[in-house]
Amino acid sequence: SFQAGTVPFTPARFVTRTNTCGELRSAHVGQKVTLYGWVQYQRQGLFLVLRDFQGLTQVIIPQDEAHSHLKELLSSAPLESVVRVTGTVSPRPLGQENPKMPTGDIEVKAETAEILNSCKKLPFEIKDFIKKSEALRMQYRYLDLRSPRLQSALRLRSRLVMSMRQYLCNLHGFVDVETPTLFKRTPGGAKEFLVPSREPGKFYSLPQSPQQFKQLLMVGGLDRYFQVARCYRDEGSRPDRQPEFTQIDIEMSFVDQAGIQRLVEGLLQHSWPEERGSIMTPFPSMTYEEALAEYGTDKPDTRFGMKIVDISDVLRGSGVHFVQNALSYPHGSIRAICIPQGVKYLTNKDLESLKESAKSEFNQCCALGALRLLSANLLEAAGLALRDPTAFHFLWVVDFPLFLPKAENPTELESAHHPFTAPHPSDASLLYSDPTKVRSQHYDLVLNGNEVGGGSIRIHNAEQQRFVLEKVLKEDSEVLSHLIEALELGAPPHGGIALVTQKLLFLLNSS
Amino acid sequence: SFQAGTVPFTPARFVTRTNTCGELRSAHVGQKVTLYGWVQYQRQGLFLVLRDFQGLTQVIIPQDEAHSHLKELLSSAPLESVVRVTGTVSPRPLGQENPKMPTGDIEVKAETAEILNSCKKLPFEIKDFIKKSEALRMQYRYLDLRSPRLQSALRLRSRLVMSMRQYLCNLHGFVDVETPTLFKRTPGGAKEFLVPSREPGKFYSLPQSPQQFKQLLMVGGLDRYFQVARCYRDEGSRPDRQPEFTQIDIEMSFVDQAGIQRLVEGLLQHSWPEERGSIMTPFPSMTYEEALAEYGTDKPDTRFGMKIVDISDVLRGSGVHFVQNALSYPHGSIRAICIPQGVKYLTNKDLESLKESAKSEFNQCCALGALRLLSANLLEAAGLALRDPTAFHFLWVVDFPLFLPKAENPTELESAHHPFTAPHPSDASLLYSDPTKVRSQHYDLVLNGNEVGGGSIRIHNAEQQRFVLEKVLKEDSEVLSHLIEALELGAPPHGGIALVTQKLLFLLNSS
Repeated sequence: SFQAGTVPFTPARFVTRTNTCGELRSAHVGQKVTLYGWVQYQRQGLFLVLRDFQGLTQVIIPQDEAHSHLKELLSSAPLESVVRVTGTVSPRPLGQENPKMPTGDIEVKAETAEILNSCKKLPFEIKDFIKKSEALRMQYRYLDLRSPRLQSALRLRSRLVMSMRQYLCNLHGFVDVETPTLFKRTPGGAKEFLVPSREPGKFYSLPQSPQQFKQLLMVGGLDRYFQVARCYRDEGSRPDRQPEFTQIDIEMSFVDQAGIQRLVEGLLQHSWPEERGSIMTPFPSMTYEEALAEYGTDKPDTRFGMKIVDISDVLRGSGVHFVQNALSYPHGSIRAICIPQGVKYLTNKDLESLKESAKSEFNQCCALGALRLLSANLLEAAGLALRDPTAFHFLWVVDFPLFLPKAENPTELESAHHPFTAPHPSDASLLYSDPTKVRSQHYDLVLNGNEVGGGSIRIHNAEQQRFVLEKVLKEDSEVLSHLIEALELGAPPHGGIALVTQKLLFLLNSS
Repeated sequence: SFQAGTVPFTPARFVTRTNTCGELRSAHVGQKVTLYGWVQYQRQGLFLVLRDFQGLTQVIIPQDEAHSHLKELLSSAPLESVVRVTGTVSPRPLGQENPKMPTGDIEVKAETAEILNSCKKLPFEIKDFIKKSEALRMQYRYLDLRSPRLQSALRLRSRLVMSMRQYLCNLHGFVDVETPTLFKRTPGGAKEFLVPSREPGKFYSLPQSPQQFKQLLMVGGLDRYFQVARCYRDEGSRPDRQPEFTQIDIEMSFVDQAGIQRLVEGLLQHSWPEERGSIMTPFPSMTYEEALAEYGTDKPDTRFGMKIVDISDVLRGSGVHFVQNALSYPHGSIRAICIPQGVKYLTNKDLESLKESAKSEFNQCCALGALRLLSANLLEAAGLALRDPTAFHFLWVVDFPLFLPKAENPTELESAHHPFTAPHPSDASLLYSDPTKVRSQHYDLVLNGNEVGGGSIRIHNAEQQRFVLEKVLKEDSEVLSHLIEALELGAPPHGGIALVTQKLLFLLNSS
């Protein structure tokens, strides 16, 4: 059912309604009101239920001869027709109040009405919508939008982003700057959409993020930038990855990693919807190495334990063949996950699916992380309340490697994130001697096991940027010469982050 | 010089500076401060001026032996290098205060400093930037951004748009919805950028506006939508028309023309920068016909008079041949503009250029409108203060024709704006008998002679929409069948407007 919620505005401004359908209470009894809405339900010419974005109101259809035209009009209006009703707010007869309905103490006795748009036969009943196929729901997206679920999801997003803007813009001096989306191709950006220009053979590119623009804004002395930035990624559409999405894109000058982290914690605390509980700050932090060792992933779900434990030393003298074999490899180890209550909750079939998963991810470092999550899902499917669905566990993952061996050729290096990421201050000299050992100043924000943001302190020194591009990544620095030149002409130290709005909202809506 | 402005936030949060360079006053004397900024000026190792986004602070370089390293560091830092300075705020020596500088009562005696990024030789001096070629300024845009002019323009835009958001979202219940920009081709949208998809032969299109999306959101019961929407137009780049731009895109259900107009007046009044004076509402309104007759344009500059007057009746009996000839045509008339003080201010050369303009636009209905503006420019160039440069004259232009004859074939009709525009209620029946006579419910918002916004009440009746497309415009309604079907399934009456942010800001910045 619809939630009344708070009405932070005067919904009658600029329009001719006097009230919304979710607004009327006993206090309105006796008032003459004009409502606009959709016919949600109609019964035998006696009453109908009118719906708008705010909620539902019961409208009583007059039965006397003088109103026969009105009765005819209202009882023949097809469901989902758009109607204006003017009438008087009355208390419901004793015993007919509906305590489950915010407007359940009153009804409106219709005096005049108008059908503003009669609805043709619907392809299906709105209330059954959720059971329909994804394709049908997409075709009639506007019908799905009338559901309380989607109305509330869209409003939550609007409210969350607005609150973030107020925090950044009004409280902390960030400047909202719109950067172009018709840009030139980013080197290495293989997944960018191309847009043919009017000049034959020349193309624009839709960038994956405003990374270069925001760094140039810092060089331009803007000090604090943010944008709810539209980003594009040509990777085909998947339910969890659309070709276009937005990110809360932030960049600051004269800041270090801790500064960005405190900013983001404050941002989320400020904008988190009250009804979802409060957020504790600072968020815990974990190194990339710890995350991989204890959770088998760089985005650990820390709502539950069952960490990965190294039991090599315990088993070293066991004499079991496969154990000895595993330990004989360089860096060979034996690791385990302890599943409390596993004996009680996991069936043989569950164990079988765990074995299957282990086999299919054999030799991949994420295998144990996947097993841990699968175990949790199996326990929950069996009825164990392992993870609190209303809990939000934020986590910083830090100290990523700056470079990773290329998958196709492990003797060559590629950026773990992007080539503008600055090395960790303690490792800066290693850049020249052993780049594989350099940790970066990249940080990921993880929420309940999902990466919801990522950022870094950037390289602001032109020489260091050139060295990374040319000597470490063996790339042609010429394509980024405009950025390197900017670093030579008074670039301040700077860093930033991008939060993926739709992931945050997905987690908020599924809680 | 930099304006101090108000500091609505704590600029030391999240960073290690204690203050900004525009912030320090006599009240700070005695405080130890840490500033970060750019070297704006340095004189003989005695002092330097440090600049950040907020302003300028004079830093005194110590001259004693114990600080020789510091002196060497600060006096050798190239201009535009990025520097940290820590020192103590002191009053300037008596008589050396600079009343033109907000921080002119104090100076900071440097104690430690660090060059964070040394600046290589600049391609030109920053203060000369404005004289450089457009191409050079674009190449080094980030240097141009360091100028007070661009810093203030970007901040003004951010502030204005934020204030609009607060009005719409917080005060009036609008929901900020992000609509897709990778869309399918709009019929008639000849000027859309195309984006090749992964499926050979299939393309996305970057839409010129979210028109269809916002109408569908109304059908979805969203009630009030807004978006700072990115729009694309493939018409080649011109100084006054970029391939991408944003508009404040608004749509409301159950609203009429007056409702949208009052909303927009309130929006502009609420968000208008205080320092530019206040806006009087409601804005005056003029019909399209009046605008053409009295100003020779549908976007009249109402900051001055010199209206076009019909003097046919006065001259009808004159016997002058060319007058009689003109009056002999159907609808033939003689029109004049009275230029007060023209005798005093206009030279023969001016009159010659007016004649040239009249000739070059001969037989075009906008000729008199162009002459009126040219006369105003000539008067102002001669020293007459005709238009107050700080005045903002808003104007609604209404009652546009719904259809216009096609330029290439005047027997066929095209939409004056777009095919979703609703006919004027008084003219609705003319739609079927004489569509050329139908006025629309379109409205333009004009500011100082520039169209800064436009919108309409939309057709919400499927039959009417189909009639317009098929019978009047002779278009294939099949390509818009999704929209027509939506109108059949409970579309509320709705309307909206789009304000072009960059035009508003251009006029604000040039005032």
